[in-house]
Amino acid sequence: MIDPVILKGFRDSLPKDEIPKKRIIRVLEDVFASYGFAAIDTPVLEYTEVLLGKGGGETDKQIFRFQDNGGRDVAMRFDLTVPFARFMAAHHEEVGVPFRRYHISKVWRGENPQKGRYREFTQCDFDIVGADNALSDAEILSLMHSSFAALGIENYTFHLSHRGLFTLFLSKLDAEKDTVEILRTVDKLRKIGEEEVRKLLAQITSSDDKADKIIAFITSGENSTFIETLEKLEALSGGKSEASERMREIYTILQSLGIEKSFTFDPSITRGLDYYTGIVYETFLSDLPSIGSVCSGGRYNDLASLYMKEKLPGVGASIGLDRLLAALDERKSPLLTDSSSADILLVPRSGEEARASLLAMDIRRKGLSVSVYLNPDAKPKKIYAFAEANSISYLLTFTDDSFTIKDLRTRETEDGEAALKRIAEEKRH
Amino acid sequence: MIDPVILKGFRDSLPKDEIPKKRIIRVLEDVFASYGFAAIDTPVLEYTEVLLGKGGGETDKQIFRFQDNGGRDVAMRFDLTVPFARFMAAHHEEVGVPFRRYHISKVWRGENPQKGRYREFTQCDFDIVGADNALSDAEILSLMHSSFAALGIENYTFHLSHRGLFTLFLSKLDAEKDTVEILRTVDKLRKIGEEEVRKLLAQITSSDDKADKIIAFITSGENSTFIETLEKLEALSGGKSEASERMREIYTILQSLGIEKSFTFDPSITRGLDYYTGIVYETFLSDLPSIGSVCSGGRYNDLASLYMKEKLPGVGASIGLDRLLAALDERKSPLLTDSSSADILLVPRSGEEARASLLAMDIRRKGLSVSVYLNPDAKPKKIYAFAEANSISYLLTFTDDSFTIKDLRTRETEDGEAALKRIAEEKRH
Repeated sequence: MIDPVILKGFRDSLPKDEIPKKRIIRVLEDVFASYGFAAIDTPVLEYTEVLLGKGGGETDKQIFRFQDNGGRDVAMRFDLTVPFARFMAAHHEEVGVPFRRYHISKVWRGENPQKGRYREFTQCDFDIVGADNALSDAEILSLMHSSFAALGIENYTFHLSHRGLFTLFLSKLDAEKDTVEILRTVDKLRKIGEEEVRKLLAQITSSDDKADKIIAFITSGENSTFIETLEKLEALSGGKSEASERMREIYTILQSLGIEKSFTFDPSITRGLDYYTGIVYETFLSDLPSIGSVCSGGRYNDLASLYMKEKLPGVGASIGLDRLLAALDERKSPLLTDSSSADILLVPRSGEEARASLLAMDIRRKGLSVSVYLNPDAKPKKIYAFAEANSISYLLTFTDDSFTIKDLRTRETEDGEAALKRIAEEKRH
Repeated sequence: MIDPVILKGFRDSLPKDEIPKKRIIRVLEDVFASYGFAAIDTPVLEYTEVLLGKGGGETDKQIFRFQDNGGRDVAMRFDLTVPFARFMAAHHEEVGVPFRRYHISKVWRGENPQKGRYREFTQCDFDIVGADNALSDAEILSLMHSSFAALGIENYTFHLSHRGLFTLFLSKLDAEKDTVEILRTVDKLRKIGEEEVRKLLAQITSSDDKADKIIAFITSGENSTFIETLEKLEALSGGKSEASERMREIYTILQSLGIEKSFTFDPSITRGLDYYTGIVYETFLSDLPSIGSVCSGGRYNDLASLYMKEKLPGVGASIGLDRLLAALDERKSPLLTDSSSADILLVPRSGEEARASLLAMDIRRKGLSVSVYLNPDAKPKKIYAFAEANSISYLLTFTDDSFTIKDLRTRETEDGEAALKRIAEEKRH
């Protein structure tokens, strides 16, 4: 006998988790499609060189990498961005630009598993490549807003900033050479607090004054409107600039959509990575700050430089699906709590099998799902246990010439046809 | 610069393929759910020992297997059946039986790639475990029928047989000891033809007479009704038996559902594997026999014997999604031909960005998908090329105080609001 164990950091997904997860993915896919974003997929396994590029980073150690039977050095994808860059280099002519894509799929990292962190997890990325203007920036933001609305998420704020403004400011401060280290330090603000960041910045820039000024810059969004913050940052970064004008244009579009209140200008958002060149954003849930950002991204000026000469500017975001599920779970979202595998449990007695199959088919045509109980001679206790394990609310049994339906929550029994009509009606709304 | 190549036997899925594939998966998921089948998922990577069991078969050579960073012997799943067996051994108490599950996901095999065969492909499995009766057998068959109906597939036949009848017959023929080899040989009938099979059977059984009788048995479904064939097979296998009674009961349920005409009794179906013990089936498309079976499966009396003592009988089927897609493509199914990424392309000029974003949002609320063209100053040629690349039929442009919509197929232009209403109406039907 082999022990049916799975690997550390991996999980089975039971119906109680998989049904809600699929429901959420569908909601997101429908929103993406309504904006003209197209689905793509890429192989799980790729040449290691293609995935790691020059390599040398943290990722190298975490990757699932091996020699395949043909002696090729291969690896499982660790994100959806690198495969997308490779995809665009290979197919940009065929798909055409501007190109909008989404990709919801699993990725693998050999990180040390800890609470809420797994070695196999689902990412949800959406990007527009081949356009660099406020219209496309605002579209990604609007799509984020529509996604959160469709999922019924409340009490969240999109924190926006612009990398270019920060760069201008650092240049004015004569601290450009330390940009990467400063960005990484500022990115830790939420984790280690303002005082700790100030200390680190003073070390990096060898100047308490510079550290103070950087802190003043990144905290200038506090208790200010979007436009007030923008104006403060313009003053701190040497006046109006392409970056500040872009933020103004984006804000105008958000206003015209009436969704500007969901966005805050937060110059402490830097998104650590070199990669970003324009707007950057993270998303926090006001009652669940410990979960961290559930949707992040930004604008980059070159997606696929590793694989092609032509520049592909783009803007995109990634929803941390596992974090989002954790948040929805915490908030008891109706999207998660309903994991029933059927609307109705139809329980035939011995000899009623054909009649049961036929009635089940009729009910399905009314738009309801029916699970036929498959052991006609089971005891009631077993049947109720099955209904409970599958979160089924209604139990249907035959009478001599018709059938009745019992609501297992209220324990009330109704005439079958009337009940069906009502349940189908309820489901439609 | 790194060459953006992918591994031999792997594919990128572009929107023209991925959009229809996702649509088909949704149709199947909805049908599965309407029968009370629940979604599950399992890790892509498992302990090699868990996946291969005793091993020693063809699979061993084809598996993607390696040592992970922790020195564990791991492998990528090569089917969805073995992980499901392991899953049931681990979770049967929590999920309860009878348990209905479906699983649509990728699997990996290092086979030599050839036309239509890939090293990464999608399987679609659905099973009922924990019940052994005609009701559950018939339910899987009915679900197959409903799936094909929902996909609008025509000209197919489900070929049914029963392993038990064949075993009884071989026992009566005194050829039981060669059962496995005989099953494998009969399974090749469609590939190598009747005469070749007769020769091989004569070699295996060392008897021309036995070979003739086996051929007579497996061809007894030709030009006969289901019940006629059943009666012939009863005669050949020593009279009424549990197996033949089961087939009769199943047929009664199929009749009561009015779907019996889609099923034929075909005793040449054996499904090579030892694994099956009851009904077995394959599905052929009459105009595309070369594609092979697009949906196959059967009843087994023990799913998880490798991992647990308790017996879990079950019945299930697997749809070869790639074969099915090839078939639908060949038949120009509307499910495949529509791969448009949006209903409407909204083209703003410079300065109309905010107005465009707002109108797009209004149109989305009407249930239509809108792609906003992101380069406001592009030339018409580029815009039309974009619409074509994304298979978008309608182009929306602003007038001073309103907008018009052009049907790119007929080149007719209509007043915007009226056109929107009509397009939304058309989409609903």
